[in-house]
Amino acid sequence: MKIVALAGGVGGAKLAHGLAQTLPPQDLTVIVNTGDDFEHLGLTICPDLDTVCYTLAGLANSSTGWGRENETWNTITNIEKLGGPNWFRLGDQDFGTHIERTRRLKEGKSLSQITQEFCTAWGIQPTVLPMSDSPVRTIVCTDEGELAFQEYFVHRQCHPRVSGFRFEGAATAQPTHGARTALEAADAIIICPSNPWVSIDPILRVLKEINKPVVAVSPIIGGKTVKGPAAKMYAELGIEPSALAVAEHYQRLLAGFILDNKDKQLSDKFRGKILVTDTLMNSNADRARLARDVLHFIGSIQI
Amino acid sequence: MKIVALAGGVGGAKLAHGLAQTLPPQDLTVIVNTGDDFEHLGLTICPDLDTVCYTLAGLANSSTGWGRENETWNTITNIEKLGGPNWFRLGDQDFGTHIERTRRLKEGKSLSQITQEFCTAWGIQPTVLPMSDSPVRTIVCTDEGELAFQEYFVHRQCHPRVSGFRFEGAATAQPTHGARTALEAADAIIICPSNPWVSIDPILRVLKEINKPVVAVSPIIGGKTVKGPAAKMYAELGIEPSALAVAEHYQRLLAGFILDNKDKQLSDKFRGKILVTDTLMNSNADRARLARDVLHFIGSIQI
Repeated sequence: MKIVALAGGVGGAKLAHGLAQTLPPQDLTVIVNTGDDFEHLGLTICPDLDTVCYTLAGLANSSTGWGRENETWNTITNIEKLGGPNWFRLGDQDFGTHIERTRRLKEGKSLSQITQEFCTAWGIQPTVLPMSDSPVRTIVCTDEGELAFQEYFVHRQCHPRVSGFRFEGAATAQPTHGARTALEAADAIIICPSNPWVSIDPILRVLKEINKPVVAVSPIIGGKTVKGPAAKMYAELGIEPSALAVAEHYQRLLAGFILDNKDKQLSDKFRGKILVTDTLMNSNADRARLARDVLHFIGSIQI
Repeated sequence: MKIVALAGGVGGAKLAHGLAQTLPPQDLTVIVNTGDDFEHLGLTICPDLDTVCYTLAGLANSSTGWGRENETWNTITNIEKLGGPNWFRLGDQDFGTHIERTRRLKEGKSLSQITQEFCTAWGIQPTVLPMSDSPVRTIVCTDEGELAFQEYFVHRQCHPRVSGFRFEGAATAQPTHGARTALEAADAIIICPSNPWVSIDPILRVLKEINKPVVAVSPIIGGKTVKGPAAKMYAELGIEPSALAVAEHYQRLLAGFILDNKDKQLSDKFRGKILVTDTLMNSNADRARLARDVLHFIGSIQI
């Protein structure tokens, strides 16, 4: 079964890692949000791509979920000492990734080519692709005006009240060649438990149409997110945050929906096919188990 | 007594540090070679400026003489792992300097302004200035063709045989405003024990004329350099490397020359005023003592 997974950062990376533990590498393509990417300190930083790659390579910081394991902070500490911007904390190893990616982009290589080269260097076997090689930039519309995503997310720590989102460049951005090929070959698409508004919507906007069965895993459990502002965003947009809200978010796409055991009582409110299971991924084993559950569910609903 | 010191990297930085321990800060300006500067990994790297600043700030690695004390190497290690250029070893703290400098250059600030800001952040009191805000690039002419300085110096480890030097941009580069002002106010100029060919000549070429008494400290002791390829360069250019050769190199400029006790036997070969003293600077105290000797010598020959 050939699978395309759509992923943002931490939650998406964890399920992608579970799928990578379960599927043969040639059967898994992870298409990653690049709407969070930004230029900072002269470097092109791709937080979701890096989180997915670090996680698949076993290099991710297991406590934060982002950044590198065994990281040091001497570069940013010196920049801070010099009075430079210090609100986006980048570790020393992580700086190496951004410096080398920026260097290759300036050489004229595409982001998908560079990502492939990095995956090879890090021993990542499944295919990881940015959603597009053209810049797409998520803009968060708030009560304090429009904010670039990282400005909202990291610098302002999601404090401003959200009223909507824009994805600059999404209308004209083409999906990467690899993404199109993988979608054509796919038996099913898995929407990972990432933020629907700012991690998955940009990918869907760029991919434009998906003519394959889609299942989504709810990133909201018991009305809350494991990490990140998805629940806060739903609430500020006037929607009660719940697995149900997520399913409605994706509704026109979904062949099936996966929600957590904690939300079992919502089961009878869903119209489509659902799987109720443990969706929290604390360990590598949890990731692999959820991946197997999701794949089994896909197999069952396609019959 | 107002002093301008002309300095390259390690040896120049040490004497500059000695002078900084001896003179009131407002009486010392260090004009630093930028002919070794280069663009690498998308960053503007100024090795001599950084060595001088790190040394004056007490941040320099005391065993290598360049780079930072207590340095880590995680950024370059990750770049290397990704297959990026690894021949120029930059430490993590050092990367912060280059990233922040490059960011400010892109903002439109001048190198001298940025250097001043960095000096303030690092608590450096004397004035440190690049020789020019315009790029000057030292090119080493060798039996293997022309090589950019760091290509020759670091990548090829000074192996190619030298036949000459070019200083790209030197003819049109203007001295920094601060350098001109300091030269006008100076009572004397000290040429630090740096490489005459590739550290001091580029500065002299940019400053164009110096109408103040100049003394130079020989970087060659007993026919050898403490560090770096100056002696090898003299030999390859058909000149026997010695303190005498250095004095002849600067001859038209010199009001006085300082050579090491080890070269005392050369004393009677000098036509001008000389000081024979210990010029090796192993400790901070050595640096201050040599600085005092040089200042005293200047005082004596100006009478």
